[in-house]
Order: sequence, then structure tokens, then C-alpha cells
Amino acid sequence: MDLLGLGTVKQLAEGLAGLPMFPYFDTAHYIVSVMALREQPGALEVSRRSPFACWFSSMLYCFGGAVLSGIILAEAPVAPLANSTNVLLASLMWYLVFYCPLDAVYSCAAVLPVRLVLTGMKEVTRTWKVLGGVTQASKKYENGLFVMIAVGWAKGAGGGLISNFEQLVRGIWKPETNELLKMSYPTKVTLMGAVLFSLQQCRYLPLRTPDLMLIYTVFIVVNKTRMMLLGSSSSPFDTVESALYQTLFARPLTYSPLTNQSQSSTRTPSCPAKPDSKSAPGVSNGLPQTEDQPDCSESESSKKTN
Amino acid sequence: MDLLGLGTVKQLAEGLAGLPMFPYFDTAHYIVSVMALREQPGALEVSRRSPFACWFSSMLYCFGGAVLSGIILAEAPVAPLANSTNVLLASLMWYLVFYCPLDAVYSCAAVLPVRLVLTGMKEVTRTWKVLGGVTQASKKYENGLFVMIAVGWAKGAGGGLISNFEQLVRGIWKPETNELLKMSYPTKVTLMGAVLFSLQQCRYLPLRTPDLMLIYTVFIVVNKTRMMLLGSSSSPFDTVESALYQTLFARPLTYSPLTNQSQSSTRTPSCPAKPDSKSAPGVSNGLPQTEDQPDCSESESSKKTN
Amino acid sequence: MDLLGLGTVKQLAEGLAGLPMFPYFDTAHYIVSVMALREQPGALEVSRRSPFACWFSSMLYCFGGAVLSGIILAEAPVAPLANSTNVLLASLMWYLVFYCPLDAVYSCAAVLPVRLVLTGMKEVTRTWKVLGGVTQASKKYENGLFVMIAVGWAKGAGGGLISNFEQLVRGIWKPETNELLKMSYPTKVTLMGAVLFSLQQCRYLPLRTPDLMLIYTVFIVVNKTRMMLLGSSSSPFDTVESALYQTLFARPLTYSPLTNQSQSSTRTPSCPAKPDSKSAPGVSNGLPQTEDQPDCSESESSKKTN
Repeated sequence: MDLLGLGTVKQLAEGLAGLPMFPYFDTAHYIVSVMALREQPGALEVSRRSPFACWFSSMLYCFGGAVLSGIILAEAPVAPLANSTNVLLASLMWYLVFYCPLDAVYSCAAVLPVRLVLTGMKEVTRTWKVLGGVTQASKKYENGLFVMIAVGWAKGAGGGLISNFEQLVRGIWKPETNELLKMSYPTKVTLMGAVLFSLQQCRYLPLRTPDLMLIYTVFIVVNKTRMMLLGSSSSPFDTVESALYQTLFARPLTYSPLTNQSQSSTRTPSCPAKPDSKSAPGVSNGLPQTEDQPDCSESESSKKTN
Repeated sequence: MDLLGLGTVKQLAEGLAGLPMFPYFDTAHYIVSVMALREQPGALEVSRRSPFACWFSSMLYCFGGAVLSGIILAEAPVAPLANSTNVLLASLMWYLVFYCPLDAVYSCAAVLPVRLVLTGMKEVTRTWKVLGGVTQASKKYENGLFVMIAVGWAKGAGGGLISNFEQLVRGIWKPETNELLKMSYPTKVTLMGAVLFSLQQCRYLPLRTPDLMLIYTVFIVVNKTRMMLLGSSSSPFDTVESALYQTLFARPLTYSPLTNQSQSSTRTPSCPAKPDSKSAPGVSNGLPQTEDQPDCSESESSKKTN
Repeated sequence: MDLLGLGTVKQLAEGLAGLPMFPYFDTAHYIVSVMALREQPGALEVSRRSPFACWFSSMLYCFGGAVLSGIILAEAPVAPLANSTNVLLASLMWYLVFYCPLDAVYSCAAVLPVRLVLTGMKEVTRTWKVLGGVTQASKKYENGLFVMIAVGWAKGAGGGLISNFEQLVRGIWKPETNELLKMSYPTKVTLMGAVLFSLQQCRYLPLRTPDLMLIYTVFIVVNKTRMMLLGSSSSPFDTVESALYQTLFARPLTYSPLTNQSQSSTRTPSCPAKPDSKSAPGVSNGLPQTEDQPDCSESESSKKTN
């Protein structure tokens, strides 16, 4: 019975590994990506004002991963455009989601059961993209573990990682946040996948590629479905992240703003200590700092290193 | 008579195709580009404050196309600097336009007849740049129509396309607009040229290259001259754009903010509908949206796709 | 005696040229870079809020030169990650400087004598980076003097040149200033080094490479030490810059805002002259301009060139 079960799983893994993404899974990825763009604040506005900018944004949503991984590997970021069929398919999805008469396509696709299926299919393409990125990197950097992780991550979650610049295309600029400061669930799960596939590629993880693909795909599809059904934002990583953070990164600060001056003996007395860089132990302030420090040129210049 | 006329046109086309851009046409391009930079708000200020930043901006105006096409094709964006003669010539034009004693060069070049001639010559270089970009792309992507269009467009209108980042060099940041959201005439005419030359390169357009170069060059020079003489901003594309827009992109929206909640069944009731993404049919609001939606983490996270 | 002295200097030069940067000099570079990041406003805040963003910023500080020179030469900006040992070492320095119990590492390293030594060692790595960049460029562009200068400069001062984008990682956006508008001492001294090494590479400077390395290294180490000890921001370039500026770039403007309209005969009368682009002769206004000009579409469009 066990052997039969293992055999079935192996067959399933091989089957999944051989599954072609084009055209159904790719189409689902394009539809869901364009729908996600449409639901951004101001996107419909842009679609009326400048269909070209809207199309460009959609292409960044659909092919952002390929563009970003191309950039960081010094391969042409314009390369996705060479695949005319996929570009035409994505453009068709863009047109239907934004400009279909009676808004038929979006209304249908937004119905929960349909959306669930499409999103599940999109999650399947994530596995392919991460693996594709890791493989692409391994050809140029045979044992470059960090490079494989970076490229796999970029290829799988590129759309989110370049979100600040995609928003710029639509005339929106929000520098106070980005996917590194506040990682969304898709970005985290893609990073996890990139790490796993890179470790497996460098033979640190004793798993065959089809098996890892199956495990990872099942994990991300099940989680995504659960989060959509429950309307929950709690990611499965929260506990691990919290534990990691408490162990490695939560250090009580050793000084307060009041004692800062007496402790920072390297600062010129005429230059006020930087008050915003200290806070009471344990206080977490979620707001990013954007204020300027007074320009204490004498001591600042001598400390500037570049 | 007809044969003679055709023969003359053919000779003219061949003559134009063989015309060297260096040094006269390139010089005109550099002068007009630097003058355009000088006429930007705050540019003279920057030229006094930081001649280096001013020079860097001027180089982006002069070589922006080569830089951008290099970036998207993963060829060194620093390559234009390898052509020392052109760089020195452009730098000389920069110096003369910004710092010539008695402001002689700018004052002369700004006189309308002189400006007309220089701008006409600059428009001739546009043909070369677009064709150069299309050819460059066709070497790497033989039948990549979209890639050829993208590279031809970037090479011909790169300076405008990277305008947000060129302004950043001068300490200016205007994210609410860019050449995709609001295309200027030069960008549109270059896109049109890129499409024509790409179609011709892929043999969809039954024209010889010198003939297309002649037609396109005459068209852009005549139009530019007309617009400068009449002080008019009405581009020849307006009618076509309007018709295209009405046919393809002007759809009445099917719902209003009042009925939005009842229609958006996929949203968690606790999360308010996105009011800014709907507007009454036919209303066009030219302002880009920059407001934040309240962070409805429960439903938002589950919808985030990346 | 002279011969002995010259022989000693030659030996010193050869010795310096053969000095390995790894591990001590590289470590000093990483520690000083991460300390400089830590002393930025808001950096400690980011280290608590998002250790990943903090780590990413630190890597940009440590490897910014390699990343930027890779970008401009179309070599993979992700290449520094391939050197796993250096990445792990830099990450260790990042962790110790930001999260060491009792803040021990930062407190020790910030003590002036220790900081002096570390900064001196970091300055030594600057020579290697500039020379590395110049050599890297010379392989692709044999006599490309400007390319060598650009790449040497990028490799030696990349961290500062990309500072706007590094700040963006931490949620900070300050477009009104950048290293081109207001060059800091490290950026200037690196540019000087890039020019010298490029001239030497192209055989315009009759010096052997080890000798130039020795001269340059001694110069930058001595200056940096002097500036740190005296807490002074006055760079050794000030006099030269001032003289250059007065000779080449300080031209009295030939018109004032009052006469602007009568002088600018190319402008449509309905379009107001650009007041901010003129100022009284001799007045230097250090503030960058960010205001918009009223959109005079008629004359503006006809002048737009791209």
C-alpha cells in the first residue's frame, strides 16, 4: 500500500514537472495579475486617461519577474517582448479585464469560485518561475547559492519587488514603503521557494526536483486558497518570523536620547546627537523616518566614507 | 516624366540614406537638445550651482536614446562615452549654450530662422536613431517585432522617456507625470516611426528602407517646422488618437460608487469599497490618483498576488 | 642615499600593489560602511522594523561600487553575491554593528583611534576599487578614456552615487539632492583617482601603476586622517574648484527677469517668461528649483525636442 502510495506521488510529481504552463496556466496568471492591477487605487482612472500607461503597467505585472531577473543577470529586460504569443495573450487579457463591454470578464472572474481556481493556477506558475530563475542563475554561477536565491526570488516575485517603479508608470510615488521594508505574503513565499530550490540545486537538500516542485506547489496553492476562503491575512510564516526576530534581532538598546550625548564620544559637541535613532527598549515604532538631520558639516564630512 | 520623377525620388532616398550624421546633423542635435534643457525650469539655476550635474543632464539629453536602448538590450549604457569625439562635441555645445560669454551662442541659436534649421536637422537624426535601434534589435531578435519597436522607440525618444530620471539629476522629482501617461509629440512620432521601420524590417511593409527613410524624414521635418512656425501644439495624430480611443477604450462604466458595495461580492463587508476606482459614465478626470486606500489587511492580503 | 630612498619607495610601491585586500582591509571596509549606514537618520529604526531591508541597505553600502559598475558595463549587478565569502563576511559585520549584545562592536569601533585605523584601511581599498574599475573598462574599451573614468569612479564611489536609491530601500526619498548636485569628499577624491588611473592606463601619465597606487593611497589616507582628527570638512580641492569655477563657469547673466520678455523673441507673447531661470548677476541661490512652469502648450509643444 505504501509503495503504491509512494509510486502515485512520484507519478504525480513527474506529471506536474512536465505540465506545460502555456496556455491555460499562463492565461490564469495574466488574468489574475491584471485584476490585481485593476484593484489598485487609481488604476481605473489611469485606464481611462492613458490606455498605453495602463497596458505598460499590466505588462510589468505579468512579466515583472522576467524583467527583474533579466536586469540583475544583465540579460535583456526587453526579452519577454520577444515571446510575441505570450505578449499578445497578456495584452488580450489586459484589454478584456479593463475594457470589455459590460465589464463582463472582470465581473465573472471576480466571482469567488472562479477567482479561487484562477489564483490556484497562478500559484502553480510561481513554482515554474522560481525554478526557472534558479536554473538560469545556476548556468552562469554554478555554485553561487546567493545568486540563485536572488534570481529565483526576482523571477518569482519580480512584479511585487518592482512595485514602486510600476506605480511610477501610473503617476504614483510612495517611497515610504516597499516590498523589502514590508514584505507581502507572495514575496515571502517566493523567497522561501527560492531558498529551497537553490539549496536543492546546490545539493544541500536531498530531494529530487519534481518532488520539491510537488511539495512547494501543493503548499502554496493550499495556503493561498485557505487565505482567500477565510479572508485571512495571517500567513503561515508569522510564528517562525516572530521567533527568529526575537532570537536574533530584538536587542534592548543600550542608551536613551537623554544619555546619547554623553555616550557618543566620537561626535563633535557642536553637533546635536541624532535623537530619532534611539528609542526606549522594546518600543517598536512602525513609522519610517524621513526627517533630515541638521547638517553638521564639520563632523559629518569627516565621517562620510562612501 | 513620371519615370524621371520616380527616378529623382529614388536618388533622393538613396542620397538621404547615405548622408553622414557627423558632424553637422549631430551638432544640430546636440545644440537643440541642450537648448531644450536650458529652457527647463530651474536648469540655469543648476548650471550655476553645479556645472557637473548640468553637464550630466545635457549628456542624458544628447545621448539618452543610446543609453536607454543599451539598458533594455543589456548592452553597456556607458557605451556612448566610448565615442570620445561625439562626447567632446556634445560637451562643447553644452559649454557654449550655457556659459558662452555674452550668451552669444544661445541668443543666436534661439533666433527663429536659425532654430528652425537646427531643429529640422535634429529631426533628420531621429530617423537614423529609430532605424539604428530597430536594426540593433533585429540582430539579436530576428523576428521580434515588439522588441524592434521597443528598441527603436527607446533609441529615438530615449531622452524624453527617461525624463523623470534626468530631472532627478537636477534635483527635481515629478512622479505625477511621465511620457507614458502623457506622451509628447516627439515621443508619439518616434513610436510611429519605430512601428513603421519594424514592420518594414519584418517584411510586413512592402517598402525599401531608403524610401521609408525619405517618407518618414520628410513627414517629421515638415510637421515640426509647421508646429514651430504656427506655434501650434495640435499634432497630426489627434484625430486618429481620438477615433482609436472612442472605438477601443471609451466604455461607460457599469456601476457607480453608490451601488459598488452591493456589486462587489468578493469583498469582505468590513472593508470599504474603493470609491476612487469608479466614476460616473463619461466623466474624465485628468488628475492621477495618489491617495491611499485604507489598509484592509484581511481581504487585501488574500487578494495580493505578485 | 637618494638611490636607496628611491629603491625603498619602489619596494613600498610594489609591496602595496601586491597587498591582498581580503580579509583585513575588506573587513575594515565593511565595518566602516555599515557604521556609516547606522549613523544615517532613521537607520536604527529600520533595523528594528525590517532587518532584511537593513541588511539589503548594508550590502548596497558595502558592494555599491561593484553593483553600479556592473550596471553601467552591462555586467550582472548580482555578481558580487557570487563571492559568498565576502557576502558572509559583510553580513557578519552588519549583524555585529547593528545587533551585537550590549552594542559592543559599534561602541568599540566608534572610539576615535580604532575608527581612524579602520577608516585608513578602508581608504586603501578605495585605490583597489578604482584601479579595478579602470582595468575592467579597459578590457572592453581599449582607448575609451571617458568610459574608464566613469567605471573607475562608479566602482570606487558607487555607494555614494546610488545613495538616493539606497535610501529608497529604507523608505526615504530625498530627490532635492544627490551626489552630482553636491559632491561629497569621498566622491570627489574617487573621481580624481579615476581620472589619474585612466590617464595612466591610456599612457598620458608617465607613471608606473604601483607608483601611482602608492601616491594616491598615501594622499587619500593622509587627507582622510587629517579631516577626521581636525573634525574639518574643508577638502583639499576647495581652492582648485573655486579657481576652476571662477574661470570657466561664473558668467554674469546678460539679462534680468524684467527685460526677459523683450529679449526672448522666440516665445509666444501669451506664454509668460520663465522667471526662475534668471537671476541678478553674481547672485548664487543654493536652493534647487522644484516649481512648475505654467503649461504654455502652444509654444511649449512646438519647442519640445526629445
